[in-house]
Amino acid sequence: MLDLQKSSRNTPTPHIRRTPFPGPLTKHQCLSRLRHPKFLIINPWFRRNLALHYRARRGRVQVFRINVSGAKIVDSASEDDDAGNRDIRLPNHTKQVSHIAVDIGGTLAKVVFFNRAPEDGLGGRLNFTKFETDDIEDCIAFLKQLVDSRREQQQQPRNTGTGKKTRGGRGSAGQDEMCVMATGGGAYLFYDRLKSELGCEIVREDEMECLISGLDFFITEIPDEVFTYSEENPMAFEEPREDIYPYLLVNIGSGVSMIKVSGPGANEFERIGGSSLGGGTLWGLLSLLTGAKSFDDMLEMSQKGDNTAVDMLVGDIYGTDYGRIGLKSTTIASTFGKVFKKNMSASNGTGKPEFKPEDISKSLLFAISNNIGQIAYLQATKHDIHNIYFGGSFIRGHTATMNTLSYAIRFWSQGSKRAYFLRHEGYLGAVGAFLRHQPRNWGRRKSFGEDGGQRIFQATRKE
Amino acid sequence: MLDLQKSSRNTPTPHIRRTPFPGPLTKHQCLSRLRHPKFLIINPWFRRNLALHYRARRGRVQVFRINVSGAKIVDSASEDDDAGNRDIRLPNHTKQVSHIAVDIGGTLAKVVFFNRAPEDGLGGRLNFTKFETDDIEDCIAFLKQLVDSRREQQQQPRNTGTGKKTRGGRGSAGQDEMCVMATGGGAYLFYDRLKSELGCEIVREDEMECLISGLDFFITEIPDEVFTYSEENPMAFEEPREDIYPYLLVNIGSGVSMIKVSGPGANEFERIGGSSLGGGTLWGLLSLLTGAKSFDDMLEMSQKGDNTAVDMLVGDIYGTDYGRIGLKSTTIASTFGKVFKKNMSASNGTGKPEFKPEDISKSLLFAISNNIGQIAYLQATKHDIHNIYFGGSFIRGHTATMNTLSYAIRFWSQGSKRAYFLRHEGYLGAVGAFLRHQPRNWGRRKSFGEDGGQRIFQATRKE
Repeated sequence: MLDLQKSSRNTPTPHIRRTPFPGPLTKHQCLSRLRHPKFLIINPWFRRNLALHYRARRGRVQVFRINVSGAKIVDSASEDDDAGNRDIRLPNHTKQVSHIAVDIGGTLAKVVFFNRAPEDGLGGRLNFTKFETDDIEDCIAFLKQLVDSRREQQQQPRNTGTGKKTRGGRGSAGQDEMCVMATGGGAYLFYDRLKSELGCEIVREDEMECLISGLDFFITEIPDEVFTYSEENPMAFEEPREDIYPYLLVNIGSGVSMIKVSGPGANEFERIGGSSLGGGTLWGLLSLLTGAKSFDDMLEMSQKGDNTAVDMLVGDIYGTDYGRIGLKSTTIASTFGKVFKKNMSASNGTGKPEFKPEDISKSLLFAISNNIGQIAYLQATKHDIHNIYFGGSFIRGHTATMNTLSYAIRFWSQGSKRAYFLRHEGYLGAVGAFLRHQPRNWGRRKSFGEDGGQRIFQATRKE
Repeated sequence: MLDLQKSSRNTPTPHIRRTPFPGPLTKHQCLSRLRHPKFLIINPWFRRNLALHYRARRGRVQVFRINVSGAKIVDSASEDDDAGNRDIRLPNHTKQVSHIAVDIGGTLAKVVFFNRAPEDGLGGRLNFTKFETDDIEDCIAFLKQLVDSRREQQQQPRNTGTGKKTRGGRGSAGQDEMCVMATGGGAYLFYDRLKSELGCEIVREDEMECLISGLDFFITEIPDEVFTYSEENPMAFEEPREDIYPYLLVNIGSGVSMIKVSGPGANEFERIGGSSLGGGTLWGLLSLLTGAKSFDDMLEMSQKGDNTAVDMLVGDIYGTDYGRIGLKSTTIASTFGKVFKKNMSASNGTGKPEFKPEDISKSLLFAISNNIGQIAYLQATKHDIHNIYFGGSFIRGHTATMNTLSYAIRFWSQGSKRAYFLRHEGYLGAVGAFLRHQPRNWGRRKSFGEDGGQRIFQATRKE
């Protein structure tokens, strides 16, 4: 039972971005995106001269290594570009990467792919986009466009950078068979469909391993990606670092998974717990209880709400603080604790009580976040872990959510544990799958190497 | 994420009582109860010749000790008598007890009082009844009737058991000033009202201390009170025992409190945590989402529900088990995880989707219970405690709730911790307050003594 008033209600909510997050692409948005002028501006090299340096032919596999020197998150000028979807510029990765990665969860499908910069640019970019899993046909259509355009590029002459033009087709040096790395439950549920509609190999990767590979990559390599949250400093970035174990990954999607990662070895991780009270629960409840049509509507509403209209506070029960055990009058004793009473009273009277969607949203968002925060703290304590990373599409860069999770960890651990967040929080699994494209015996996670003075990230398994 | 299917869905729910639990007394029920013939049958000595052995006059206070030899829960013949409200027969407690105890929580107010047996009977009984806190005027009216009838008895001649008749009025040996022991937040919130309307002293006691006193009493003294739950043996009673520390008390009312009790000393307990997701949350959500008018309606509905209509299972995401980490296809990945999708699909179509109240009730009851079970397990692990007692008015003897809590503790602790339940689960605080009627410097909890071969329970504080 934390003090929501203390943690977030009486202080103005800081804004860490300029534009509201859009939801996942709708069917129309998705299908029009590739044709839309804006998409061409953001990704001007899309459908263009893609060099194919990556080889994955049977029996002749080159390990996928990504050059992360100078990696930087791109500040998008686009008004409706979700901060969590922002590209990552990799100015020194010159090899083309033909494979695409998709992480299909219970609610959202996340796609990650690499595009080289246009001929006059340097390196390339990692691109991020997402779909609702219910609109899986849109997602598959998007993947198919990517696959087809890459195949098409393989047939076109390309500039090798040496002034010579060559073709990227089969048999050439740039040749690559397209492949889609797939993880999440949907990699199994939709496997046959992906395979038949995309017409290329679908390589399935374990969900937990992908989450960890993705998180390792973000923590160790990408500047301005990992941050801590506080009201005073809502986005205090952490420098990329190598000494990262042990940590607890709390991945909040439809449900919640908690994974203890104790080292880089193949067996040095364990799913130690989870909760069925996650994003799916909140979205489900709020879609029934409010008129919101998207999760972002709900998040926006919750910022205007007053949870004390529905929650029962210690002060509602005691009329004052319960000082003996340190519970303030503003502490929430029971989420939704006033609703039953008000509802019954109103039913006995003339009509239904009016509960504002804003108040309901604020109450339930806080309750679910706080509950996850408490369980994460307890699991971290049990396993003697101090660093807790929150990933998954539930957070969406929403300040109140991060504030609640941060506050819960600080409150319960008395400051001994830290909550970390990521700008690409929803893409851990997809990025992990993307990075794991390698021979079967290669591994789970990172190893560093220097390649001509360049910093290289490569997902390897230390046996 | 536990497997609800495994834990309760595929096996028939055993019935451990013959009649459904009624809710708290309505205004009408409450006011008519004292006049109702049934009440007179159950409590034939009510309003009658009450001997007043207990002295609480200023400056001359006798410590309250209760003779628990032969204590036994009374099997009620009444069809609508809540098992949790059943009287406890104390055949060897011959002294009258005039004080009454009330525990006023956020949702329910619980009353405990003692009545001597009729003149031809032995000892007396502890009586239990409850009201909705919103109907506090009914509760106060009930208390006032008790107070008045006791005062009235003090003026009437009574049989001392020695053949002599005496009066219980002021100045006599049986004399006692009426007093109401009050705990819970309402003891503070309604203090002035209780004092003015009842016209007697209101002694306020700390809520946590009362819960512990009450639980200690039930564990150590009352046969057939504490039990473990399993589907094979839904009510396996524990023998009363003295070696009870340490234990974790999880009290589930509107909210949840978790109290670690490490010994009988005054400072040997601590509120180590809690959750705002408790009974109030479930009642609030279900009163909005279903047509249920009482919590017992909701419990009954939940027994007929199929949560898979609203919950997202691992199988819904994977199409199969997620064997790598031991999650079966029937495991709930996300409570209410199907609702958002179905609701949005229906809104885009012709109308609202139909979610059955039964399915909603089953899903949310399981989710809240399972969440409490997980947090209780984690707290018990953190504090190295093996015995977990679940109290509070949330459980109400409902088999699915106990099954979920038991299963969660067994599952997470791999059988190393045990969940215990009580038949008077909702009355821990009220019984504790009742037993704590004693001089200020006397204390929190039990000590045993032998009094002429009789077993005596007395709430004392070991400094």
